[in-house]
Amino acid sequence: MKLIRYGVPGKEKTGVIINDIKYDTSAFGEDYNELFFENDGLNRLQQFLKDNADNLPEVSDNERLGSPVARPSKIVCIGLNYKDHAEETNAPLPKEPIIFFKSTTSLVGPNDNIIIPKNSVKTDWEVELAIVIGKKASYVDEADAMGYVAGYCLHNDVSEREFQLERNGTWDKGKGCDTFAPVGPFLATSDELSDVHNLRLWLTVNGETMQDGTTANLIFDVPYLVSYISQFMTLLPGDIISTGTPAGVGLGMKPPVYLKPGDVVELGIDGLGTARQVVEAYVKN
Amino acid sequence: MKLIRYGVPGKEKTGVIINDIKYDTSAFGEDYNELFFENDGLNRLQQFLKDNADNLPEVSDNERLGSPVARPSKIVCIGLNYKDHAEETNAPLPKEPIIFFKSTTSLVGPNDNIIIPKNSVKTDWEVELAIVIGKKASYVDEADAMGYVAGYCLHNDVSEREFQLERNGTWDKGKGCDTFAPVGPFLATSDELSDVHNLRLWLTVNGETMQDGTTANLIFDVPYLVSYISQFMTLLPGDIISTGTPAGVGLGMKPPVYLKPGDVVELGIDGLGTARQVVEAYVKN
Repeated sequence: MKLIRYGVPGKEKTGVIINDIKYDTSAFGEDYNELFFENDGLNRLQQFLKDNADNLPEVSDNERLGSPVARPSKIVCIGLNYKDHAEETNAPLPKEPIIFFKSTTSLVGPNDNIIIPKNSVKTDWEVELAIVIGKKASYVDEADAMGYVAGYCLHNDVSEREFQLERNGTWDKGKGCDTFAPVGPFLATSDELSDVHNLRLWLTVNGETMQDGTTANLIFDVPYLVSYISQFMTLLPGDIISTGTPAGVGLGMKPPVYLKPGDVVELGIDGLGTARQVVEAYVKN
Repeated sequence: MKLIRYGVPGKEKTGVIINDIKYDTSAFGEDYNELFFENDGLNRLQQFLKDNADNLPEVSDNERLGSPVARPSKIVCIGLNYKDHAEETNAPLPKEPIIFFKSTTSLVGPNDNIIIPKNSVKTDWEVELAIVIGKKASYVDEADAMGYVAGYCLHNDVSEREFQLERNGTWDKGKGCDTFAPVGPFLATSDELSDVHNLRLWLTVNGETMQDGTTANLIFDVPYLVSYISQFMTLLPGDIISTGTPAGVGLGMKPPVYLKPGDVVELGIDGLGTARQVVEAYVKN
């Protein structure tokens, strides 16, 4: 299945995509949130779709898309998980995964604007494969880890490099600004992808290709990451894990290049769709 | 007001403490969560208490206490915010606040057991003053910041030092294990404290005093922190900010001392009550 959420920010309705057409699933009566995943929501939704295949309302292509997953308990991110990206940032290859968090208030829809924070001069992009957790995971063995995955999404791990690297402290400071986590267009359940470790992922700025990689080059793969993170914290249903970005971020350019108002960022992953974000400056409401 | 949540983990009921007696406020009909704080819950609860002063059921002292705040969107922590603690860990004094996150799955009641994670050899304690946010805060000026604070709690920022400092990556890896955030016994609304910047805070292990400090020694004070964090992310009602710990953690001892099963940790802050946690080893369920 391909799950979407659409409509007004904060009041999204649920839907699915079938044969490239979007359908409303509001009649199912549940948001795609922690409770949904926890209570076998994916299987129940599949049954609902079978029972209602002929009378689902279509969703207009004019509707805004939200994140396909409602606000999770956490967004866990992995740093420097592609060899070429570690090299471009002059960082040593990690011996074990680097974990950091994005504030969940940074979550937005796939085509929402990226707002450059007040006082930011180094807002950067990172196309990433995001994992959505399907059931509570604590001390999970690597061999069992794929059973804890509900599916996957496209994610732009937007990052403010000065906040992240030059303002004292952990990376978290530059990762959780509002609009810094555009997710979607849809959540693809695991069965939709033939091989999650062989997907091309790419990102352009104003039409120019900046990132063009493949998940075949992940240093730590999906089951390793789920198992690894679950040794340090309990993952809840609906939690998002973002698996790191390949080479081609603005920080790695010589000289570095950062986003400015009016820039258009487009990105995509095989089987997980594409997204498009216009960059705007912060303006006080 | 002094707010409590009590009962079975995950199914806590709400209450208040008046003249050292605990009363049930389930009839108020709302948990102490994001929606409660967002919708002027503190003022409405105060009116409810006036209207129902004579018919509130008492809560037995045998009842388990939960965190006085329901699971927030985030627990933001400040590192090295007392000069003596920075010195004992051989860290330079921060020029601006160090921000990291605790996973919200680490949140537990004030007297729940601390579980030493699997493969942990360096589980440590940190008594801290925690701020609870009362309304949505984004780019808040320092002069206005106190208006965004709902109140304060006692917090033990339990930390696994090997995970935090020796396992690659940010501090987050050693801060978010299950049971690593005992909060409570109660949330004191701001008006309950005459001066939040002049509170003694202390922690003992097996009766021996390990930490004995005062919030007068905070490097960055409460309004500064609320304003500062809100430049990097939006704080939501019910969010917890933990303000850092004074000297006396296990990591700072020569040689370092860490928690072991059976140890008893007791801690307190003037006006915010005391908590007691028994340490146990992780056992697979």
